[in-house]
Amino acid sequence: MGPGPSDVSPRILNAMARPTIGHLDPLFIQLMDETKNLLQYAFQTENPLTMPISAPGSAGMEACFVNLIEPGDKVIVCINGVFGMRMVENVERCGGEAVTINNAWGEQTDLNAVEDALNVNPDAKILAFVHAETSTGVRNEAKLLCELAQKHNCLTIVDSVTSLGGIELDVDGWGIDAIYSGSQKCLSCVPGIAPVSFSEKAVSVIQNRKTKVQSWFLDMNLIVGYWGKGAKRAYHHTAPVNSMYAMYESLLMLKEEGLENAWKRHASGHDRLAQGLNEIGLELTVDSRFRLPQLNVVRIPEGVDDAKVRSHLLNEFNLEIGAGLGEHAGKVWRIGLMGYACKQRNIDHCIASLKSVLN
Amino acid sequence: MGPGPSDVSPRILNAMARPTIGHLDPLFIQLMDETKNLLQYAFQTENPLTMPISAPGSAGMEACFVNLIEPGDKVIVCINGVFGMRMVENVERCGGEAVTINNAWGEQTDLNAVEDALNVNPDAKILAFVHAETSTGVRNEAKLLCELAQKHNCLTIVDSVTSLGGIELDVDGWGIDAIYSGSQKCLSCVPGIAPVSFSEKAVSVIQNRKTKVQSWFLDMNLIVGYWGKGAKRAYHHTAPVNSMYAMYESLLMLKEEGLENAWKRHASGHDRLAQGLNEIGLELTVDSRFRLPQLNVVRIPEGVDDAKVRSHLLNEFNLEIGAGLGEHAGKVWRIGLMGYACKQRNIDHCIASLKSVLN
Repeated sequence: MGPGPSDVSPRILNAMARPTIGHLDPLFIQLMDETKNLLQYAFQTENPLTMPISAPGSAGMEACFVNLIEPGDKVIVCINGVFGMRMVENVERCGGEAVTINNAWGEQTDLNAVEDALNVNPDAKILAFVHAETSTGVRNEAKLLCELAQKHNCLTIVDSVTSLGGIELDVDGWGIDAIYSGSQKCLSCVPGIAPVSFSEKAVSVIQNRKTKVQSWFLDMNLIVGYWGKGAKRAYHHTAPVNSMYAMYESLLMLKEEGLENAWKRHASGHDRLAQGLNEIGLELTVDSRFRLPQLNVVRIPEGVDDAKVRSHLLNEFNLEIGAGLGEHAGKVWRIGLMGYACKQRNIDHCIASLKSVLN
Repeated sequence: MGPGPSDVSPRILNAMARPTIGHLDPLFIQLMDETKNLLQYAFQTENPLTMPISAPGSAGMEACFVNLIEPGDKVIVCINGVFGMRMVENVERCGGEAVTINNAWGEQTDLNAVEDALNVNPDAKILAFVHAETSTGVRNEAKLLCELAQKHNCLTIVDSVTSLGGIELDVDGWGIDAIYSGSQKCLSCVPGIAPVSFSEKAVSVIQNRKTKVQSWFLDMNLIVGYWGKGAKRAYHHTAPVNSMYAMYESLLMLKEEGLENAWKRHASGHDRLAQGLNEIGLELTVDSRFRLPQLNVVRIPEGVDDAKVRSHLLNEFNLEIGAGLGEHAGKVWRIGLMGYACKQRNIDHCIASLKSVLN
C-alpha cells in the first residue's frame, strides 16, 4: 500500500509467466492490437497513436517531451510536487525554455496563475501538468487546464501516471494532446511499462519537426513502424514480451470491471480509509475537494519516528506504506489505494496495523 | 530459435511471477546488490558502475552514447550490419560527429581501416563497435579493437547484446570503457532489460561533463543514486521489479553453469547445427573463422519462398527462425542458438523441420 508499485493480481502474474514468444510473432502482433484497443478504452480516446512504451513511466514522460519539444520551444510547466519538477528537467534537456508556475506542495495548481502565464507568453507551445501528483496526493484540474491551453492555442502534455484507472480521465473529452502513464499504479500491473497517447494534432507536430527527436529509442516516428496499423511491422526494438502479457491482462481486467466502477471503487475505498485514519487520530494533509482517493497523504504525528514505523509495518505486518518525497520527507506517509490493492481487507489491515504500531 | 528473444527457462518465468515488492524494499535492494555482483561476473569486470538498465537493449545502447558524448565529440563507428548503423544514429542525435568505417555485411570490421581512421582523427574521443552483429552473424575482433583504441587514447563503446554469455567477453581484460547488452539473447531472460557497465575512466568522463546528459531517464549521474552502493537509495524511477527477478535468476543460472561452460555449450551446439545444415544442403554465409555460434546465418536456397517457409515452420513445427534484416532481407535466415535454446533437442528438431519443409 505504498505509492506504487501496487499489489499485482495473481491473474496478471500468471499471464506474465507464459512462455516468451517472438516480438514479431503474428500472435504477439494480435496481442499488441488488442492492447492498443484496451488502452484507448482506458484513456477514453480514439487516438490511433496509443500504445505502451517499453520502459517505466519516467521514460513515458520523456517520450512525450522529446517528441514534442524542439530546441527553443517554450513550455509552461505547472509545479506542485516532484513530478512537475521532473517535467522541467525534461524541458531543459530538450533545449526548451521552461516557464514555471509554482504552487505549494499539497495545494492545487492555481488556474489564474496559469491563465496569466498563457497571456504573458503567447509564444508558448505547450502547457504541461501532472493530473495526479503522486508526491503530494493532489489532483490538478486537468479538464480546466486543458480548456485554458486550448483557448491559448497550446498543446498539452499530461502526466496520468497515478490517475489512469483511479479517477476520471477523459483524453478526447478534455482534448489532451500527449499523455503518459505507468503500469504499476491503478492498473496494478508489474512496473516497467508506460502507456502513452498522442492526439492527431500532436502527431502532426511530431511528423513536421525540423530536428530529429534526440532519443532514438523514444522517437515516435520510428516506434509507430512497430506499433502501427496493419500486419507488417518493422523491427525497432525487442518489446518486453512478457511484461506486455501482463499489461494486456491488467487492461482486460479494467475493461471487465468497467472504468466508472473502478473509479467508484477507489472513491469508496478512500472514504473507508479516511474514516479509519480519523478514528485512530491521523490526519490527511490534502483538502478533501482535491484529494486523490488512490494516494493518501497522512501527517506523521509529532514525536513519531518515520522510518521506524514504516520498517515496523513492513517487517511485522507485511505492509508497505510510502515515505514522503522531497520537502515532504519525514513529514508525511503516503498510503496507496491503487487498483488491486484497493479493497476492504487491505484498508482494515492498514488501519489496524497503524493503530498497533502507533500505540 | 530466432535471433532473440530466445527461449526462456521455466525457472526464470517462475521467478518473474513472484509477488511484486516495492522498488525501495530492503529485500529488493539486496537483490539489486546480488544482481550487480552476478553481472560483474558475467561481464568479467570489477567496474562498480555495472547494473541492468530498466529498458531494452536499444536503451542500453542509448545509455552508453548519451552519457559519454557531448555536442561536437567525434566518434569512430564501425559498421558491418544494422547495429553499427544504429550507433551512428545515436552519435548524431547526441550532437556528435560520426566517422564511419564501413565493411561489407557478413565481413568483419577491418582492423587496418580502424587504425587508419584513428591516425587520421587524433581528436576522436570514442571508438564504437558491435562485438556480435546480430544482423549478420559476424564476430568482430573486440580485443584487438580495444587495443587499437587504447593506443590512440580513445574510449570504447561495445555492443555485447548477442555476445554476453555466448562467446568469450572480458570487459576488464580487454579494457572496455562502456558496454551494453540485452537480457533476451544468451542470458535467456525475458526481453526488456539492458545490462551495462562503465569503466572508472568512463565514469570520470560522465562526472565531468560540461553539459547535462540529454536523457533524464538514462542519466547515469542520477541512476547511480538508486543503483549505487550502500543501504540508502534515492528514488529515480520505479524499477521493473519482476523483470529484475528474472534477470537475477538468469544470471544465477549462468554462474551455476560457469561462463566458460556456457561458451563451450554454444560452440558445440553450433558445430552440431552446422553439420546438420550441411547435410540437408544449406549453407552458412559467414566465414567459420569469425562466425557467431549463437547466431547462424543461412543462405535461402534459390527459388525458395522466405516468408512461406518461416510461417510453415512456425505454424506446423512450432519453430521460430529469424528473417534477414536490412540488405539481407529475403536472402538469409537467422537461426539462434542462444542460452536455454542452445541444446541438442532443439538443434535436431530444427534440422528435421527445415528438411521436411524444404523437401
